[in-house]
Amino acid sequence: MISVIIVGTGNVAQNLFQAFEKSPSINIKQVIGRNEQHLHFAKNTVPINTDFNEIPTADVYILAVSDDAIALVAKNFKNKKGLVVHTSGANSINVLHRNKRVGVFYPLQTFTKGKTISFQDIPICIEATNEIDVDLLKKVAHTLSNTVSEITSEQRKTIHIAAVFVNNFTNYMYTIGAEICAENDIDFKLLQPLIKETAAKLDDLTPNQAQTGPAKRGDQKTLHNHLQFIKDKHQRELYTLLSNAIKEKHGKKL
Amino acid sequence: MISVIIVGTGNVAQNLFQAFEKSPSINIKQVIGRNEQHLHFAKNTVPINTDFNEIPTADVYILAVSDDAIALVAKNFKNKKGLVVHTSGANSINVLHRNKRVGVFYPLQTFTKGKTISFQDIPICIEATNEIDVDLLKKVAHTLSNTVSEITSEQRKTIHIAAVFVNNFTNYMYTIGAEICAENDIDFKLLQPLIKETAAKLDDLTPNQAQTGPAKRGDQKTLHNHLQFIKDKHQRELYTLLSNAIKEKHGKKL
Repeated sequence: MISVIIVGTGNVAQNLFQAFEKSPSINIKQVIGRNEQHLHFAKNTVPINTDFNEIPTADVYILAVSDDAIALVAKNFKNKKGLVVHTSGANSINVLHRNKRVGVFYPLQTFTKGKTISFQDIPICIEATNEIDVDLLKKVAHTLSNTVSEITSEQRKTIHIAAVFVNNFTNYMYTIGAEICAENDIDFKLLQPLIKETAAKLDDLTPNQAQTGPAKRGDQKTLHNHLQFIKDKHQRELYTLLSNAIKEKHGKKL
Repeated sequence: MISVIIVGTGNVAQNLFQAFEKSPSINIKQVIGRNEQHLHFAKNTVPINTDFNEIPTADVYILAVSDDAIALVAKNFKNKKGLVVHTSGANSINVLHRNKRVGVFYPLQTFTKGKTISFQDIPICIEATNEIDVDLLKKVAHTLSNTVSEITSEQRKTIHIAAVFVNNFTNYMYTIGAEICAENDIDFKLLQPLIKETAAKLDDLTPNQAQTGPAKRGDQKTLHNHLQFIKDKHQRELYTLLSNAIKEKHGKKL
């Protein structure tokens, strides 16, 4: 049995809590947060704590707090023997340099408050400064997921940037799609099967192979018609920039 | 039993063929294409034809050909009594103006050669110039899909533009994610669960609600770090443009 303390009350903390809660080999000793009300998700199941001076001993302390708060929160665990890890894609392991045993436990996924998702397929990227701690994190991660990868801080930064493109920026493409639909009284839900299949295609194809559309085909007539139709200056700018990028990549001369 | 003739040998034609083939109320009378070799997908199941002078009578002629070819191919059906429809998102019904009875049968999905997908959840957007033909297309569409919508040419143009954003441009975001991974020896497959969840979130949230990431949070430190890390000029340009757009939309001052 590995004992774990979760620090934080946000989406990652809540999702980790729910996942560990189901794991027979993990004992959640405590969930810690400054605001008692925000700890309601854990209240009836495990001990909760709002006082950073009363932290019990545990094998692993998981700081699932916002990026800016990691260094500050980590100070409270300076004298602890257990392994202190953060869950951030953007931060190096070095942000924890004042702690004795440090690591990273980064689940590569987007979490939504109130929506529980299965960890089984979520890659968990781990990092620690010695073999024993790497092994400990591997054990903890494998209680949740089938995909556990040892990833350096530098690699994790890369993954995080790639994630911004495929998650944050992709969602922004959805946002524009929804805006265009709303402006023209079309139900955005009509586009959902297309959106899901666009993602599902990557099971079999690289994104480069999966590219379709007027820009890929060099179909100037459709590109011209679309630009005539789009009235919003910002949408038009994006349409032009991305179409040109796709045309260039796929060898169609502008 | 409704008799249908499919014209074309590309992804849409092949996928429609496979779907209609399973439908007990549709009789595929013929599949027509200029190149006999490209008709191999239908050869052993239904009559194939490469001669546009020998087209039998059918209730519906589905021209699943490339956008540029629609008008030209439609000429061959000028004297036919049956309903002539195209399958294009980008083209108006008017491209068929020389034909007697005309319509549009637009499955809102991205098709990949060699990958059969279920039509059940694919919205089919139909259009025709009179009630009887609308009803006929509804019947045909309902043999394949649960979502059949009567959509005007103007609305379909809107949908097609929105589809370019959520499908073509989203896939381009995946492409950049894959490039960033490749440049840094990261397996792009690690990002697949994230990509799928990004799409799946739309079951419960609007894209605007689903937006996350450093730009949404106004996290200047991470944005700065990412831009320092990205060496490719084009990737950096896109990162800046899209981050600024997200910041603006979500009310973070630049």
